[in-house]
This record gives sequence, structure tokens and C-alpha cells, in this order.
Amino acid sequence: MKKIEHVGIAVNDLEKANEVYRKILGVSHYKIEEVASEGVLTSFFKTADSKVELLQATHKQGPIAKFVEQRGEGIHHIAFLVTDIYKEIIRLKKEGFDIIDDSPKKGADNKLVAFVHPKSCNGVLIELCQEIKNDD
Amino acid sequence: MKKIEHVGIAVNDLEKANEVYRKILGVSHYKIEEVASEGVLTSFFKTADSKVELLQATHKQGPIAKFVEQRGEGIHHIAFLVTDIYKEIIRLKKEGFDIIDDSPKKGADNKLVAFVHPKSCNGVLIELCQEIKNDD
Repeated sequence: MKKIEHVGIAVNDLEKANEVYRKILGVSHYKIEEVASEGVLTSFFKTADSKVELLQATHKQGPIAKFVEQRGEGIHHIAFLVTDIYKEIIRLKKEGFDIIDDSPKKGADNKLVAFVHPKSCNGVLIELCQEIKNDD
Repeated sequence: MKKIEHVGIAVNDLEKANEVYRKILGVSHYKIEEVASEGVLTSFFKTADSKVELLQATHKQGPIAKFVEQRGEGIHHIAFLVTDIYKEIIRLKKEGFDIIDDSPKKGADNKLVAFVHPKSCNGVLIELCQEIKNDD
């Protein structure tokens, strides 16, 4: 893992939460992006070399809607940047981790992403992510 | 806030969790430290400019024991590094945030720490932390 790329926080109301985190972090979000396939609207804040991502559900069957329904608002996942997500999935599978996404999928913020199941990671949903190169 | 200093993860068994996170992160923990006042044993992993902190309860009345009892293992808090924790507490109070610690206290990893209540931060327990200078 290269670094903590971001921490993802599930919220009920993105607009209100953007204001809360602007006050906490001392900077405004630098973008809002919808990931329709995941049923989520996201916003991103820069914090030095990492980010805070806020996530609001856009439909009731998506993972963020289910998370908030079960546990309330709060930290949803940690994302670690990796150099080669395909190799990392293979490596972690060999180590016995339960990888939710056998193949990486397109996530927010121009990333390929894959999730490791919380059962493998002491209750923590871990996202592996890799920047998509524009010349791909 | 200067950066995400660390993400804190509550675990049941620090020794086993250290092994899990060694596999995930590709590095071993670089130290173990007890914070007796908080009833917690911690380990730290470096991930570029941030850290992952694992926390195991050492007595049943401490905050980590209560967290794990109520919610199970998982992400417990995000810590943001600040330049002046005293000023930051005053600033956030003025902004309407519920600060748990009016005065910062000594935390793990040579830090002064203060917590912001999850009710103020969309369900996220936020730690403010500042390095203790050795010439203080």
C-alpha cells in the first residue's frame, strides 16, 4: 500500500455535511461527483496528501443507504492507494483475505477500486484504489 | 487541519490484528504503546505520511471496550494533525462543535489530543492531535 488515499464517511445530507467538514477541515470540498453504479453522490476534501470523501446515498438499495440504515452516519471505509490493483487483489487473496470485487471497477475520482470484506479486516471495509491513467 | 495523522481501529486481539494489518499494509507495526489512562494498548503502522493505529482495550470500562461491546471491531476515529491544538479547540467551539476535551490530554505516540463528539461530525469521532515537543 502506498498511502491512505482517503477516508470515506457516509452522511445523510451531503450539502449540510459539506458545510460541517468545511468548518472542521478549514477547506471547502473541491468537487462533487456522482457514481450512479453505486447509488452514491460524493464530495472530496483535500487534507495534505490524503482526502476526506463524503458519501450520500442516491437510491435506497445502494451500499451507502444500507450502511446508514443499519449503523447511522459515520466512517464507511478507508481507501489505500496501490500501484497495481490487479496484483494487489491476487496478493491479498493468496494471504486469505475475502475480496469483494474479483475485478476492479470504476469508482469516484478517476480510480479503479476493489473492496476487501470487513470480516477479513477487523470490521474495517478497505478499498484498494489505483489512479486511472488518461492514456489508457 | 494539516493532514490525516492516523486512522484508529478498535480490535479485540492486538497480536492477531497486527498480523492481519502487516499482510494488508505490507509493513509491520513500528511500535506498541499502552495508554493506561485510556485503558488501551495501541500499535502503529506507517503508511506514507499517515499512520494506522490499532487499539485493544485493557480494561472493561475504557472507551475502546465500550465501543467494541456496542458496535464490534472497526474504525474508531480519524485523527487530524493541527499546529496549535489549544487554538483549534477554541475555533471549533466557536463554530458550534461539541468538544469532548476542553483541555488537551496526553495521548499515544507523543501527542497532545482532544476529541470532537461524533454528534457534531456526522457520526465520526474526530481526534485533534499535536506533537509534543521534547524541549517543552
